[in-house]
Amino acid sequence: MGNNVKRLAILGSTGSIGQQTLQVTRAFPDRLQIAALAAGSNASLLAQQVSEFKPKYVALADGDVPSGVDRLSIEEIAAHPEVDFVVIATAGKAGLAPTLAAIRAGKKIALANKEVLVMAGEIVMAEARGRGVHIHPVDSEHSAIWQCLEGEQGENIGQIILTASGGPFRHLSVEELSKVTAEDALKHPTWQMGKKVTIDSATLMNKGMEIIEARWLFDVPVDRIKVLIHPESIVHSMVEFSDGAVKMQLGYPDMCVPIQYALSYPERWSNEALPRIDFDQLKSFNFDRPDMTRFPCLRLAIEVAGKGGTYAAALSAADEVAVGLFLDGRIGLMDIPRLVEKTLGVHRSVDNPTLEQILAADGWAREQIQGMV
Amino acid sequence: MGNNVKRLAILGSTGSIGQQTLQVTRAFPDRLQIAALAAGSNASLLAQQVSEFKPKYVALADGDVPSGVDRLSIEEIAAHPEVDFVVIATAGKAGLAPTLAAIRAGKKIALANKEVLVMAGEIVMAEARGRGVHIHPVDSEHSAIWQCLEGEQGENIGQIILTASGGPFRHLSVEELSKVTAEDALKHPTWQMGKKVTIDSATLMNKGMEIIEARWLFDVPVDRIKVLIHPESIVHSMVEFSDGAVKMQLGYPDMCVPIQYALSYPERWSNEALPRIDFDQLKSFNFDRPDMTRFPCLRLAIEVAGKGGTYAAALSAADEVAVGLFLDGRIGLMDIPRLVEKTLGVHRSVDNPTLEQILAADGWAREQIQGMV
Repeated sequence: MGNNVKRLAILGSTGSIGQQTLQVTRAFPDRLQIAALAAGSNASLLAQQVSEFKPKYVALADGDVPSGVDRLSIEEIAAHPEVDFVVIATAGKAGLAPTLAAIRAGKKIALANKEVLVMAGEIVMAEARGRGVHIHPVDSEHSAIWQCLEGEQGENIGQIILTASGGPFRHLSVEELSKVTAEDALKHPTWQMGKKVTIDSATLMNKGMEIIEARWLFDVPVDRIKVLIHPESIVHSMVEFSDGAVKMQLGYPDMCVPIQYALSYPERWSNEALPRIDFDQLKSFNFDRPDMTRFPCLRLAIEVAGKGGTYAAALSAADEVAVGLFLDGRIGLMDIPRLVEKTLGVHRSVDNPTLEQILAADGWAREQIQGMV
Repeated sequence: MGNNVKRLAILGSTGSIGQQTLQVTRAFPDRLQIAALAAGSNASLLAQQVSEFKPKYVALADGDVPSGVDRLSIEEIAAHPEVDFVVIATAGKAGLAPTLAAIRAGKKIALANKEVLVMAGEIVMAEARGRGVHIHPVDSEHSAIWQCLEGEQGENIGQIILTASGGPFRHLSVEELSKVTAEDALKHPTWQMGKKVTIDSATLMNKGMEIIEARWLFDVPVDRIKVLIHPESIVHSMVEFSDGAVKMQLGYPDMCVPIQYALSYPERWSNEALPRIDFDQLKSFNFDRPDMTRFPCLRLAIEVAGKGGTYAAALSAADEVAVGLFLDGRIGLMDIPRLVEKTLGVHRSVDNPTLEQILAADGWAREQIQGMV
């Protein structure tokens, strides 16, 4: 094994992004090595992963770990000296503490967890800048923007245009949307994703959070970030520059592409297993404006992005709880924005919040929304 | 005026690209200065340009130049010590000698003349590499590819996909194509261009030549350069990388955008006069494969690109004469590929040709095709 091998820690290895990161790792045994894995409660899948990838360290929130590996906490793994590169593939606020631990330890970071930047973007980016840590986005949209910006000057960004599939329910009326079940919503047409993200895609909350994420990742004011519906999900996002030129990045929907780019950057690695666009079959790309009436989550996220303070943390927490309630069949799809809006309406935001104040806003919003049901 | 001002020579200043280059220059009086202008025979327009932009030197092939400016040859202008940047906006083979003169004098070059690389790409690029001269493409397609490659490694190029509007006659049958007149053909729907390029766009010879140009500019084998019809002319071209990711560059059709980029590179300059895509109005992009039966010029150019030698010079010369004959109403549109193919069929190509052999092939093809009519 050469000196160029990257020693990875995957936080959230048993989730959708975690598994796809291992799939990419499998293709590059000379370039990527699994130093550590962290999971939540799927002990049996973690055991399989340990047996295949032979990490020295594991973390598991709940359950027994295989014998022969050192059990550490997720933060210890994120900051471990035998780790070069930390892939944050956890869901929800669980990613926040290990992300900060990895930044403070000067690790390279591939970030797939939206909530980290939505909740605490200002703090996380300030820490990263302070330590000279570059955060590689894993989201297909932010990876697209990052790729379009490669070789360009940040000051030349005119606008960022995030594309959205529009979700499986983009043609439904408000009334029809109210009747959608969790089962309907989990049949997402294009991307292979976790449940939380799938529901957030159906409500466009996911896209709203991506606006907040993009705002921090690329240091662009929210009013210069736009959303366009693009049902084919082939164009992953665009950047308009100060001279009017626009670049797009595209490809068939497959998270392994942005995951690999986050790991290979600044290189690109030839990988025959990744899908190629069949240009002979390329027919048309469609674009449309998002409808904020039928998809109020997008409007809420844009409002929150403009307000700052702890609003985004409250939004993120309220959404996480509401999506959980929807998945349990306890509320309807349109109750998600209703409950989130109600929570935001009574939230007392703190300007320039500390991490403690952000976590307090998160805890407050969770209690608040539980009390509403 | 600061040290960063670029002193331009525009060769072909009275043509379409020349005039648009002056339009860009007008917007940046602190960054661009006209040191010299060269034109063919439009003495009155040249006089107007001289009075507005006050170049010290002019060249005019045919006619009187205004008093108070030094008259030089076009090659002297291309190599003049008071010139930093030479814009080659001549049409046809007239651009070849001044391009080589500019390269040998170590000037920065913005190249809008296709034939220079089509005829003598290998020689021109070898000279440019030898002198450390970077050739900035002005064609919207090659500018798009160049922009997509910015910050990327050349070895990671998988494929280049050139887009083509398909021309105004993309839906016509071979029989209908035979009846097209010069007047019909000059009503091109999207781009503001010179007559020769407009006809070459209608036959797709222009796209075929762009394949040859791209092959030299980006050092990519012809079999990895593809053409896609894209009637909206908003996507200007694409690059597929080794990991399957694709980048496109797009914008409303306006040559001032690639002209300005060629001049501003590696910067981008904010210019409110350049068109912006109205994303709220963006509906769809369509793509289709080109039809080589109805557009045999594209097939001929691809064949020639694969063969090398002096074939491309013969193709370029034969096409230039044939387009002239068509514009004069002496032959039909479908006679252009017929005459070019006939010329190529009897051409004796020279491998690894010298410049003299290339010019001889050019002269031979011109005589040959004239004799056929």
